[in-house]
This record gives sequence, C-alpha cells and structure tokens, in this order.
Amino acid sequence: MSAAADPLPSWNEGEAKTAILDFVRKTTDATNPDFVREKDRVATFDQDGTLWVEHPFYTQVAFALKRLTDLAPQHPEWKTTEPYKSALAGDLAAFAKFTVNDLEELVAATHAGMTTDGFHTIVADWIAKAKHPRWDRLYKDLVYQPMLEVMEYLRASRYKVYIVTGGGQAFVRAYADQVYNSRPEEVIGSSIATQFEYDAEGRAVLMRPPKLLLYNDSSGKPQDIYLFLGRPPQAAFGNSTGDQQMLEYTQSGGGARLMALVLHDDDKREYAYGPDSPQTDTKFGAFTQALYDEAKAKGWIVVSMKRDWKRIFSFES
Amino acid sequence: MSAAADPLPSWNEGEAKTAILDFVRKTTDATNPDFVREKDRVATFDQDGTLWVEHPFYTQVAFALKRLTDLAPQHPEWKTTEPYKSALAGDLAAFAKFTVNDLEELVAATHAGMTTDGFHTIVADWIAKAKHPRWDRLYKDLVYQPMLEVMEYLRASRYKVYIVTGGGQAFVRAYADQVYNSRPEEVIGSSIATQFEYDAEGRAVLMRPPKLLLYNDSSGKPQDIYLFLGRPPQAAFGNSTGDQQMLEYTQSGGGARLMALVLHDDDKREYAYGPDSPQTDTKFGAFTQALYDEAKAKGWIVVSMKRDWKRIFSFES
Repeated sequence: MSAAADPLPSWNEGEAKTAILDFVRKTTDATNPDFVREKDRVATFDQDGTLWVEHPFYTQVAFALKRLTDLAPQHPEWKTTEPYKSALAGDLAAFAKFTVNDLEELVAATHAGMTTDGFHTIVADWIAKAKHPRWDRLYKDLVYQPMLEVMEYLRASRYKVYIVTGGGQAFVRAYADQVYNSRPEEVIGSSIATQFEYDAEGRAVLMRPPKLLLYNDSSGKPQDIYLFLGRPPQAAFGNSTGDQQMLEYTQSGGGARLMALVLHDDDKREYAYGPDSPQTDTKFGAFTQALYDEAKAKGWIVVSMKRDWKRIFSFES
Repeated sequence: MSAAADPLPSWNEGEAKTAILDFVRKTTDATNPDFVREKDRVATFDQDGTLWVEHPFYTQVAFALKRLTDLAPQHPEWKTTEPYKSALAGDLAAFAKFTVNDLEELVAATHAGMTTDGFHTIVADWIAKAKHPRWDRLYKDLVYQPMLEVMEYLRASRYKVYIVTGGGQAFVRAYADQVYNSRPEEVIGSSIATQFEYDAEGRAVLMRPPKLLLYNDSSGKPQDIYLFLGRPPQAAFGNSTGDQQMLEYTQSGGGARLMALVLHDDDKREYAYGPDSPQTDTKFGAFTQALYDEAKAKGWIVVSMKRDWKRIFSFES
C-alpha cells in the first residue's frame, strides 16, 4: 500500500489495522458477499479510553470539580458535607470510594438547574481552556489520532459514525464538533431529563432538572443504541467492561461485524491499565482478564496501543 | 416555474407552497443572510394527521386491536375485564373514554413481552396487509403525497428529515423505510424501555418490558428532539396541539425557521376536524381555535388540505 493511499497512517502494520481495512473493504464492495448497504452502515465508538485519555480520571470529573469550586461560595454547607467536602478538596482517593448516590448528587449539583443552552455554554467555555495535568495540554487535544483516522475512514466509506459514551450526552455534544467532527445527533450518552418551559418572554426553553433519564453504560449501551438507532451497529469500538454489551450486541446482528477493544498497555506514551496491570478503578468498567478472554474467544480485535499505534496524539511527530 | 422544475407538484399555488419554497431557497443559498449550514439543516414531521390519515382512529390502534384479537384465546379473562372487553368488541365509543392507564395496559398487552426483533416482525407482517375501512386500501398507502414531496424536497436540499411522532417509535420504524424512505434513526417516537439479556444460545437480545420510557407528545416532543438531536429543528410540521410545543421550540431557535400545521378541512377527500368542525377526540390533541390563533399570531403556516393540496394520495389522479 502506498503511503498516500493509507487511510490509517498512524497505525502500525499488524492484525488490528488489517482487520479494520478488511472490514471496510468487504462491507463497501458491492460484489462481496459481506457487502452492507449504505443505509445500514453504522459504527459506534465509546469515548473515554477509546477516543481520548480517561486517566487519571474522566475529563468530565475535572469539569465537575471545577464547577463545584465555582459554585462553592453559594454553598457554604459543602465545606462540611460529603460528598462535596472531599470533592472540593480534590481528594481523588475519596472520589474513588464515592457511591453511585454520591456521584448522582455531584452531577445534580454541577450539571442540572440551568437551561440546555446555558449548560452548553458552560461546557464550551470550560473545554476551551481546561488542561490535563500530565501533558499540560488541553483535554480536547488528548484525542487518539489513530482513532480519529478510523472515524474519518469510516465516514469516507459512507458509514455513519456515532459516539456512544457513558459520559454525559450534553457534555460531549458541547465539543463533539470541534474534537470529533461529530454532529449533536451523532452523540449518544448518559442523559438527565429535560423539562419544557416558557421563559419570562414566553419563549420556549428546556430546563435541566436533576433527574437521570438514561444511564448509557454496560447494558445501557445496547439499549440506547436501539433507542436511538433501531438496530445493532456494524462495527463497535470500546475499551472496557462498560463496552462489553455493546460489542456483544454488535456481534448479535450477524454477518460482517467488527468488534474492537483498545488495550491501554503503553505506560510510557499514555497509561497501562489492562489485565496485566494493577486495576486503578473498576467502578466504571475496566479491561479485565475475563473481557480479554471473551474478546479472544469471539474474534474481537484487541488493539494494543503500544504495538498498533505509531503515534497516539496528533501533536506527536 | 416550469412543471418539470416544481419540487411540489401536488401542491396548489398559494401561501403555503410559496412559504415552503422560500424557506428552502433562502436557507440553502450561501449568499442569503438566512443561509443555514448543511450540518444544521434538520426538519421534523409529526406522523399521524400530518403524514398520513389518523381518522377515524390512529393506525396503531387498529394494530393494537388486531393484536388483542390474536392474543385473546390465551387470555379468556379479557372477555369480562375492562379495558380488554370493550377493546375486543371494537367499541370505539368506549375507546374514546379510556383513561391513560387503560391505554397503557392495552399497550403493555399488545406491544411488550417479546424481543425487539420479534416486535419488528409482528408489525411488518401486519402493515403489509392491514387496510383502512373507508378506502379499502392499505394503511401504508394512505400517506399524503404533498407531504412526501416536502420530505423529498428537503432531503434533496441536504436537510435531515426526522419523523417525531406520539406513536410508538418501534412501530413506526418497522415501516418507515418503505412508507417514508426514512431510516430507523430518523424516527423519534414514544418508547417503552428495552432490557438487555442473553438468549438460550448466549446471544445478546433486547426484550421489551411493559415500561414506558418516552412519551413523545406535546412537551415530550421538544424534550425528545433535544435528547436525540441536541437542538431545535429549522423546520417542523404538525397538525394538532400535540405538536404545539414542537413548533414553539422550533421557533425559539431564532433566524429562519418554518413552522407549519396541516389543517384537516376536506371532508370530501379526507376528513374535516379543524377549529370549525365538531371535535371528534381531543385526548391526543386537536387543531383547536387557540392553536389556530397562535399560528396566525406567530407567523406559522396553516396548510389547508382543501385549498393547498392538488391531490392528497398518490393513488389519486
């Protein structure tokens, strides 16, 4: 293959790259028995750990902590009340021990109570400046260049590309265009409800009450993919047990399907937290040995960041 | 305009047709101040009464009654228990008096308890043969040809076209391709939850438990448009108070927006049940005088079926 024709230049030659290229070629070749009509070409991507860095904590957690800090002066009681106290102190050890109820309370305090437009502006303003402590670079620059290439390659091959994230749908949509070249309708995520109201001028607005509507992780991913898209995708990319059911659902569709898991095994260029590494946090899913065994047994692709990716970030030479 | 160049040949010349043509021309002309980028071109259409016939009852009600009849032998208790007894007797007067709880029970009995694939097959088999009593034609042929032309005209103008229906999302998706040329992801509707499970062979399946997730009518329409699409559409078409909030939300986006209501005022070719007609059923929304007044006050288009549509169905000459 000539370099100019390579749609995945940040990938090293190997099984993973070959599997992706083969999948796209056969499903877009009308003479191939595995051909897929354009209207059925759908691919889904987990976000955190699949499209961008998720360590040492989710980017959305950094956002929530900043929001807490900004709002703290209006809530003096937070200084002495958990989970606010630990969260405000930036106590990551305490954070790892928060219950789901604690987290829901923090989400309610930081993500609800405003209009949908208001929340969009808050996130857009934050993501424009917020930086990752390790690289001292904007979070939005810490996307995996090899995965951006897969997304663009699929789009160029007439696939519709969706982000299917356990993170907040409205949060991700606020930057999805600039970071992933994704439209709002191409982001499916965890969602709180909205409430239709009229503002003082009688104009229709949507408020964000603190009420969970969709929890888009694990079994929630296939359920929400069905809700939004109506059938299994042809291809799905994830990196943890939170994506397991999405990949199983993808494979259940039969025919030519591509299931892939990104394995974080490069502690020099990024992080290592696969089955061979000490698990740092399993609350939200992890790449466990059981998941690795399932992938091998079912023919899913395991993408080694260390072996398969020539570079990880666009700012690397 | 030459006949060959007319994208809306089933429309009579008049305010409504002119408004639609003008809206599309200005929002797709890069030199016009009202130009809309392709990625923001979204239009939403109510289904029942806007895209196809909804009288004397919703098509989905006919489906539910047929399902009840098919399932009745397994449920002898239905013969003596409401709401089943009246529904099975085809008692439309009783049907009009059913409470929301009654209807939820009927939906649960007829729309839940199977896999998502199983339900799709049930609907697809039914819609292939089910006929409307007045015309003795398939329900799926009773779509409004002028509205199909608007949908195709918008698509040709690089708009994404969505159906936003109070009816069941999975129900409408089962025939949306053949009836509207719409993909599953282009149908937003009322939805019950799904439940991820493994079948006897360990294959991932989604079951349909009898649990309402989204009620996509009235305020539910803008809420679900935001959930699925992330912003107001540029254009929205409806026909009743169930679409009022969708049109208000559309207009709230500002700039060039098209809000349109189909007025059923042609009792010869279809039905007449607008503000000037006796209201046959207001439970699910109706074209009330208040809605008519709001439309006029806010510059929404009122499409008179009698005056604006040259023909209503494709089978008419």
